[in-house]
Amino acid sequence: MQAPTPKEIANAGDRIEPYVHRTPVLESHALIDGRIIELKLENTQLTGSFKVRGAFNTLLTSDVPGAGVVAASGGNHGAAVAYAAGKLGHKATIFVPEVAGASKIALIRETGADLHVVPGQYAEALALAQAFEAETGAMQIHAYDSPKTLAGQGAVMREWEAQYLASHTVLIAVGGGGLIGGALAWLEGRKDIVAVEPERAPTLHAALEAGAPVDVEVGGIAANALGARRIGQLCFDLAVEHQVETVLVNDDAIAEAQRLLWRVCRQWVEPAGATALAALISGAYRPVTKESVGVLVCGANPAPGPFD
Amino acid sequence: MQAPTPKEIANAGDRIEPYVHRTPVLESHALIDGRIIELKLENTQLTGSFKVRGAFNTLLTSDVPGAGVVAASGGNHGAAVAYAAGKLGHKATIFVPEVAGASKIALIRETGADLHVVPGQYAEALALAQAFEAETGAMQIHAYDSPKTLAGQGAVMREWEAQYLASHTVLIAVGGGGLIGGALAWLEGRKDIVAVEPERAPTLHAALEAGAPVDVEVGGIAANALGARRIGQLCFDLAVEHQVETVLVNDDAIAEAQRLLWRVCRQWVEPAGATALAALISGAYRPVTKESVGVLVCGANPAPGPFD
Repeated sequence: MQAPTPKEIANAGDRIEPYVHRTPVLESHALIDGRIIELKLENTQLTGSFKVRGAFNTLLTSDVPGAGVVAASGGNHGAAVAYAAGKLGHKATIFVPEVAGASKIALIRETGADLHVVPGQYAEALALAQAFEAETGAMQIHAYDSPKTLAGQGAVMREWEAQYLASHTVLIAVGGGGLIGGALAWLEGRKDIVAVEPERAPTLHAALEAGAPVDVEVGGIAANALGARRIGQLCFDLAVEHQVETVLVNDDAIAEAQRLLWRVCRQWVEPAGATALAALISGAYRPVTKESVGVLVCGANPAPGPFD
Repeated sequence: MQAPTPKEIANAGDRIEPYVHRTPVLESHALIDGRIIELKLENTQLTGSFKVRGAFNTLLTSDVPGAGVVAASGGNHGAAVAYAAGKLGHKATIFVPEVAGASKIALIRETGADLHVVPGQYAEALALAQAFEAETGAMQIHAYDSPKTLAGQGAVMREWEAQYLASHTVLIAVGGGGLIGGALAWLEGRKDIVAVEPERAPTLHAALEAGAPVDVEVGGIAANALGARRIGQLCFDLAVEHQVETVLVNDDAIAEAQRLLWRVCRQWVEPAGATALAALISGAYRPVTKESVGVLVCGANPAPGPFD
């Protein structure tokens, strides 16, 4: 299993373009005094997160069996797979841990997918999805550690560069590593990427310390989106190759970043979507004076949402 | 009193640029099947609406007296004036009708302005603001019917054209007419502008029928932002000159448009911010097959908001 090449990511971007939003970029001088921050508003993506890019890329490049597709998800990946499968006419079966919350569960239900809400965390849902795959022959779509998924997610960064991303440094939140992995594979070192993780879900940080992906305990307010127990191998290898810096933020900083995104930009995002910004406002990442910084706002889907 | 020229609007745009957001544009194919809609996300503007543009333009081109500025507002204009005055070091006194709601009132309070919440609708707040002006010598900033205000608001459309607005037709919600007036003055007929009004606040519609601005009864879910009792003269004259089509939407269509903006784009806006889109989804405005359509999403500030 190998990370996608830039060419594969470019092809993925072209392939999924008719199905997804080209998400807008907002520059603000008002989030942090005296510093312009570029925000890639991937929270405005269909289904409310970047995950739909990897889902469409996977489905559009696969022979989907009659049993359809199956996915395990903390919520956003499941919603993305269910949405993409529905648009492309495939059956979808989704296993979601209870921690996903009512809002994300409703999001999946409205796509018409066959939905199973199961006790525990992401890992438990994944085990059930794997059992379903073995039993029915349905196609498993992994939430992050797959080249086709990374190629779809990498298209976010390709798109942002085409939108004239000026920043030297880009902050990206990390759960299982699909988004940052795709970004690293696309950029090939053209930008400095900072991996931002909740203190209570430090999958990449722990793996880099241990020298290999290791299981971590996961918890905290972003756990339903960034609560993968172990970083993906593809992401890990890319992070080592590009010497990615990781920083940790606590739940208070994440919650403060959520409030700031609403107050200044009227973007209401879930904790995971505000995690990258939290590194800046908490000082967990301190750019030097002239360093320009971009923040990938990767997901909306707060729970409860405004119309729940 | 004359409408601003395109040159004056361009100057206003340059003048306010350091103080406001250049708001992003999102194209979506998923709001209405088979049709790409361009959305100008002015809801992401500082203070949550376009009003801050007119407020900065007015303050930056005026000799502000020691008594500071005074404004009457359904909420968004008051927040804009208070914010702009605060950033530029002026005292601000704001009169807000109770219908503004707790969320907008809190927004004004956090700027440090001297805030008066008064019974009744916008017109009652305006009368009190005028009395305050007469008594103290504070500078009145009108919410819509002033050339400097129109010049600032017109900068929205200038910016959108610079962002390669492709649509033939642009839908804009109308309250007192500052935003659409600025847009008409800037565009000089280059685009077809459709004025969208709530059935229960039809200021422009009623004026065009009567042949002159007339008072209307105002109510409905968008009243705290689109509840001016009478269209501004500047806007009225521009609407006659450019033969603007007006359409009316009911509160159910506005509420449905709010839900759709959240579901598809994760933008949570107040009723006024969704009013222009409501004309499309309700069929109040039916574009012909090949007609491309842009929608100006003019304000966020739902009440209560997510962190109220």
